[in-house]
Amino acid sequence: MAVNLNIPDESAIYPVAGVEIGIAQAGIKKPGRDDLTLFKFTPGTSVAGVFTRNRFRAAPVQICESRLAASNAIRALIINTGNANAGTGADGLERAFETCRTLSKELGLLEEEILPFSTGVILEPLPVEKITAAVPQCIRALDKNAWFQAAHSIMTTDTLPKICSRQLTLDGRKVTITGVSKGAGMIRPNMATMLGFVATDAEIAPALLKELVKDIANRSFNRITVDGDTSTNDSFIVIATGQSGVQVQDAQSPHYEAIREELTAVALELAQKIVRDAEGATKFITIQVDEAESSQTALKIAYAIAHSPLVKTAFYASDPNLGRILAAIGYAGVDDLNVGALRLWLDDVLVASEGGRNPDYREEDGQRIMQQPEIVVRVALGRGKTSETVYTCDFSHEYVSINADYRS
Amino acid sequence: MAVNLNIPDESAIYPVAGVEIGIAQAGIKKPGRDDLTLFKFTPGTSVAGVFTRNRFRAAPVQICESRLAASNAIRALIINTGNANAGTGADGLERAFETCRTLSKELGLLEEEILPFSTGVILEPLPVEKITAAVPQCIRALDKNAWFQAAHSIMTTDTLPKICSRQLTLDGRKVTITGVSKGAGMIRPNMATMLGFVATDAEIAPALLKELVKDIANRSFNRITVDGDTSTNDSFIVIATGQSGVQVQDAQSPHYEAIREELTAVALELAQKIVRDAEGATKFITIQVDEAESSQTALKIAYAIAHSPLVKTAFYASDPNLGRILAAIGYAGVDDLNVGALRLWLDDVLVASEGGRNPDYREEDGQRIMQQPEIVVRVALGRGKTSETVYTCDFSHEYVSINADYRS
Repeated sequence: MAVNLNIPDESAIYPVAGVEIGIAQAGIKKPGRDDLTLFKFTPGTSVAGVFTRNRFRAAPVQICESRLAASNAIRALIINTGNANAGTGADGLERAFETCRTLSKELGLLEEEILPFSTGVILEPLPVEKITAAVPQCIRALDKNAWFQAAHSIMTTDTLPKICSRQLTLDGRKVTITGVSKGAGMIRPNMATMLGFVATDAEIAPALLKELVKDIANRSFNRITVDGDTSTNDSFIVIATGQSGVQVQDAQSPHYEAIREELTAVALELAQKIVRDAEGATKFITIQVDEAESSQTALKIAYAIAHSPLVKTAFYASDPNLGRILAAIGYAGVDDLNVGALRLWLDDVLVASEGGRNPDYREEDGQRIMQQPEIVVRVALGRGKTSETVYTCDFSHEYVSINADYRS
Repeated sequence: MAVNLNIPDESAIYPVAGVEIGIAQAGIKKPGRDDLTLFKFTPGTSVAGVFTRNRFRAAPVQICESRLAASNAIRALIINTGNANAGTGADGLERAFETCRTLSKELGLLEEEILPFSTGVILEPLPVEKITAAVPQCIRALDKNAWFQAAHSIMTTDTLPKICSRQLTLDGRKVTITGVSKGAGMIRPNMATMLGFVATDAEIAPALLKELVKDIANRSFNRITVDGDTSTNDSFIVIATGQSGVQVQDAQSPHYEAIREELTAVALELAQKIVRDAEGATKFITIQVDEAESSQTALKIAYAIAHSPLVKTAFYASDPNLGRILAAIGYAGVDDLNVGALRLWLDDVLVASEGGRNPDYREEDGQRIMQQPEIVVRVALGRGKTSETVYTCDFSHEYVSINADYRS
């Protein structure tokens, strides 16, 4: 059901110098499935991350946040699917610590150099003994060319792997950026989404990387929504190994803009892939709000449209029932909205203006756009110069089926 | 598909002295369907109302608000289905005025004594000529015993009529309260819902009635949600004809509490009936949040649970996937929420406490509750003494079907 989700040829995925990946079958939820993924980094690597703002932050998220607050010198990530280790209290924290402890012994690292990640069902105890038993298998499998397999092994209800890779040349040196992500439901990242990992072999100063990861998240993972449900486990991680020899010290460095742009492009593509493969999605919808006085206003309106079940089912039906979009704009919480100044387009078709239907709008034009697999909804508010864009999908029978059946 | 929606026997519906109702087939959307409803009130009747806060307020809502701001002496309501007259700009206002003008001439009333109401598709022109042509038919049909037919004639995607009637005796005089409502989708009233009309033959002072209607809405229609979509046409109207001889001047009047309680009970039952007949609903869910420090906090959490598509599909599947409820509580926007102090019950089963699963919780207990058609979700926050209750339903395949097909 995924909407135009491009899976690059394996030859177009560039390994990142300084990164090795190992995968194992721990049998966490079901046997015979790759469900445990280890990322190992060369010494000197910098890591930064952003995490969910859900108050029920999962145990591994709490550990990641506290370790990254203390140091950016991270040497390994361990990621399990099949269980989110969220809503699990003190016992959940202990189980996440135990995972890291086992891995630290096997790799000869400090516990604090390891970040744990979990995704899957909430409110069930993490089967930590299955995970620790599979750690040696992960280590034996370590390979710098396992990015494609990692994109598979971190999937849950995803139907397709999400991976993106780019190279650029700076001062005659090749810099590589490669990333993977997962997620298909419980998607409305509020820092980042579960899970996005992007690595580069550029050297990025730790203080700068910390700022950069937030900026990138706000232009990519923090601009997608499937169902408005912010997950307990959202995590977006950027890894800079420094192996290319290209250095970025601060925002004035000559290569800063180029690196930032490419990292953002990879993150945005990975984020959009989550929407393209969203549970039950048949349409990829871009919602652009222009002429706002602030990002906050633009985002309120974009998310009201993106979360409306009535708007989403109309997209599913290819029905230009556009009054539903106006209704969502109207209840978005912008109290002094002047509906007379507002204009609404579907792609290039002006649908509404001056508080009502555009007199030149013809139903068949709306119908034609609604049948496309990719649709741009554009709203102009006449209040200022700020724009924001949010990416979402439609709401189908398949979404209900997937979420009524998940767990069973 | 409605969930335990009680339709009273016609003999249990008491007419309200001073209220007549007339119904016609105007052929607004389809021929052969009762789609135009006239309420006519005796002189001396007081009317008060609350209306949607959606910024795209429909034309009739704008007219109602301005007329009720000027005077409570309303003599008639005219209600059409099949078209919402919303997102229709200045032309929509003119069409609503024309409806009132025609009716005022036929009834010998002032235009300002008439309130118009519309429900149906947004963003399409109101076929006003069909409505004005059917007005004489409404007037010929006026009858004090037509409440049951009115509950039918205001329906759109509703599958069943919503009606409630009560009598009480005060100082030896019988007071009657009867009301009807409609609505099944685009339901998250933010003053009231489209459409609720409650009439009593008590005499209620206009200034008091104006306050009372807000208070009642906040205890009934403003506490239900189906899909989080606040409609452009929500209207809740209370009518007091004064024909019983029982008078209520202010909040100190001896009968104030009794009348308020009964009016609220009728409004709450009518509001709950909307949820019971919500599009595709198979479960009626009560969400009670206790121990909050404010209504605002309690409602944030209650609505986050009520609007989560993942929670709603889990109810549909009778799946005790309760982590989804915790996740919704966590992202509800209560930034200083202490998850360790929070407890969660399904009916009388304690599911979660101290930031994790209650150690005594057994999956089969959760399973048993989830299979019931009526479920109470109770959350205690440990922050204060305020409680709020919100009513909602599950999210089914049928909801998607109904909203993907509506209009066609």
